[in-house]
Amino acid sequence: MVTPVTVLELAGVAVFAVSGALAATRLCQTFVTACFFALITGVGGGSLRDLLLGVRAEWLEDRLVALVIMMSALAVWFTPGRWWREKVLEWADAAGLAAFAALGTAKAVEYGVQPLPAIVLGVISGCVGGIIRDVLAGVPSILMRPELYVTAAALSASVSLIALEMGMQRLLALLLASAAGFGLRGAAMIWRIELPAYARDRPAKAE
Amino acid sequence: MVTPVTVLELAGVAVFAVSGALAATRLCQTFVTACFFALITGVGGGSLRDLLLGVRAEWLEDRLVALVIMMSALAVWFTPGRWWREKVLEWADAAGLAAFAALGTAKAVEYGVQPLPAIVLGVISGCVGGIIRDVLAGVPSILMRPELYVTAAALSASVSLIALEMGMQRLLALLLASAAGFGLRGAAMIWRIELPAYARDRPAKAE
Amino acid sequence: MVTPVTVLELAGVAVFAVSGALAATRLCQTFVTACFFALITGVGGGSLRDLLLGVRAEWLEDRLVALVIMMSALAVWFTPGRWWREKVLEWADAAGLAAFAALGTAKAVEYGVQPLPAIVLGVISGCVGGIIRDVLAGVPSILMRPELYVTAAALSASVSLIALEMGMQRLLALLLASAAGFGLRGAAMIWRIELPAYARDRPAKAE
Repeated sequence: MVTPVTVLELAGVAVFAVSGALAATRLCQTFVTACFFALITGVGGGSLRDLLLGVRAEWLEDRLVALVIMMSALAVWFTPGRWWREKVLEWADAAGLAAFAALGTAKAVEYGVQPLPAIVLGVISGCVGGIIRDVLAGVPSILMRPELYVTAAALSASVSLIALEMGMQRLLALLLASAAGFGLRGAAMIWRIELPAYARDRPAKAE
Repeated sequence: MVTPVTVLELAGVAVFAVSGALAATRLCQTFVTACFFALITGVGGGSLRDLLLGVRAEWLEDRLVALVIMMSALAVWFTPGRWWREKVLEWADAAGLAAFAALGTAKAVEYGVQPLPAIVLGVISGCVGGIIRDVLAGVPSILMRPELYVTAAALSASVSLIALEMGMQRLLALLLASAAGFGLRGAAMIWRIELPAYARDRPAKAE
Repeated sequence: MVTPVTVLELAGVAVFAVSGALAATRLCQTFVTACFFALITGVGGGSLRDLLLGVRAEWLEDRLVALVIMMSALAVWFTPGRWWREKVLEWADAAGLAAFAALGTAKAVEYGVQPLPAIVLGVISGCVGGIIRDVLAGVPSILMRPELYVTAAALSASVSLIALEMGMQRLLALLLASAAGFGLRGAAMIWRIELPAYARDRPAKAE
């Protein structure tokens, strides 16, 4: 059955898959490579979460996820590149990041993971797809940029954990957490909020 | 018991292990590094398939796989480099690719994976070992080359799925699928068949 | 309950986490990135071992591991860089490497893995965290250096296996194995013991 949570998840997969396929087309790769990049970016983070949990990767049980990924790659391939504006993509990516982090933590909690590792799993769900995409494409990873990104995922994951622990209804908790992470990432993009970088051999002030 | 399917699998492991060990000797590495490269190339794809399936990696249960990998590294180390002709290796790699893709999809089907993800798992089984080898060795990945490679794995995986779904006997289905994938990869090598690369800002014609 | 084995494990996690966080601060990254590097370096090897075994990653069940990693990142962030001398770190890393390799093999044996793959799993436990750290940081991997490193892990893993198979008490076997691996790595650092690199097109003499 397609629940609102499933829709949230599939939307996140589609956004990340598109960003993966675009990374491939920007490198002037072939359609098959674009599909591969769409796959690893779309399901990389969630798969690693599932592997660490010791369960089968979710997308193997699902008819829709692999289809959504292939459709995303097709969409990128057959439309002009200028349709996919950097700005629009960044906002879509922010939404996917926040949703995946919230969902990842919720799944970890369901599987009885301790609170702190559950937040870490949420962050992994949100960020790892993009990291693998960047390593394969040979571009500097989002990890290395000072802009708030992992931090936004951590906020989303933390809110998700706290809301669920307080007994909030699942869908509500996920939406609240996603909104918090999306808001922080959005604010970081608009006002260029950055974390301080480490200043060698001087103790840094704080995060 | 050593079945024909086991022989097919061990031959594939040996071929990939040799290609991994050669990548290490070409970088003038040590014997231990050569073993490590042989290992990840030989069992990388199959291991990721097993992890995604949520089961233990096959080579942990097996006395022979780790031995075959070590023998492959030894063979590469103690024989002159010119014995290992690029041409011969490429053909052996094509055979390994096709066999692993067919075997990977067959295992996924046995474990109740949906059809489209089962094909994806077959492709992963065939291609991922080589991808990790290339990332670690710092050479451009086969993923990035336009020659039909992933596509040949996808053909082998698809034929394997269809033949098994139609009730064909397992060994026969695997051999048929491997032959199809090997044939396509071989044709691509002989006649340099390539997929069209993405042409920026113009809709491409087709795959 | 905190057993001596747990203490050994947590110490190894702390050492690797510190080396990961330092890799991030040397690249002048942010605190969040430093935490991420500390995480992958601290639990990367053990996690891959657990994934290959088909069980849940150990640190998800544990309240302490994630905490130790975060404390390590904090310690690196708020202390002057010159406190962390390369020399001290290399020795700490040697201790972590040897302990993880011994522990990894012991866990594999407990889970019924065959002897040779059990040694391989020990080596993976010890080395993979550092390898992922190096790939993400974009520096040449320890894998590629001729100094005895993987070999020391292999010695520790092998001693662990043999001692356990001979019925030695667990803690004793682990300490003996760690001492052997640490000793070899230490000797390699002091006397610069190196494996011979592959000499192209001439058969090498031996390992």
